[in-house]
Amino acid sequence: MSEVRAGSLFAALPRRAAVERVDDLLAGGPFRLLRIVSSGQATPPGEWYDQDDDEWVVLLRGAATVRLADEAAPRRLAPGDWLLLPAGCRHRVEWTAPDGPTVWLALHHVAQGGDR
Amino acid sequence: MSEVRAGSLFAALPRRAAVERVDDLLAGGPFRLLRIVSSGQATPPGEWYDQDDDEWVVLLRGAATVRLADEAAPRRLAPGDWLLLPAGCRHRVEWTAPDGPTVWLALHHVAQGGDR
Repeated sequence: MSEVRAGSLFAALPRRAAVERVDDLLAGGPFRLLRIVSSGQATPPGEWYDQDDDEWVVLLRGAATVRLADEAAPRRLAPGDWLLLPAGCRHRVEWTAPDGPTVWLALHHVAQGGDR
Repeated sequence: MSEVRAGSLFAALPRRAAVERVDDLLAGGPFRLLRIVSSGQATPPGEWYDQDDDEWVVLLRGAATVRLADEAAPRRLAPGDWLLLPAGCRHRVEWTAPDGPTVWLALHHVAQGGDR
């Protein structure tokens, strides 16, 4: 890359949105950096994320609970709380705050084999 | 990596510290993820950062001004504001808030050639 870029993670936040909003901040290299804005969404019942990539994710605004498949109770996340989820670590978002945007920053370490 | 890890970017914040505090969150792969906590520190007068790596940096708490060498005026950063600084983009932190911690999250894309 060769140009300075700038933005705000808290700009253009949807107040209420029917679906999660996902914006790519960086992509194309060995990692992918995303801003995700939830508006009360959760992972659909019975579904789990099961990723090929390691993911580091931090909640920056709002609130959520995240359930890991091998844990009995969900984890409650407040602003600043981060999780490092290794590839293959099944997890789901059980709940996000219904009364305002929940902002996540997610860093995916793309598995060997190329850009996706 | 194989184990879930968790933490908070806002935990164990020094209230006032004589030097910036830098914590590695992720390292050893093609990128390095750092939490930096400033307590009023700035880049020493006349000095510039001039890095071999691309850096994506976001201010999450506090306030700062960052000067890019090819810009006349510094940029004021508030929580959520991020910058993508390509390798070789000379920059310096002119000021950080003196009255409380300024928390940064910095992602360095390590240049080709190995882990550092």
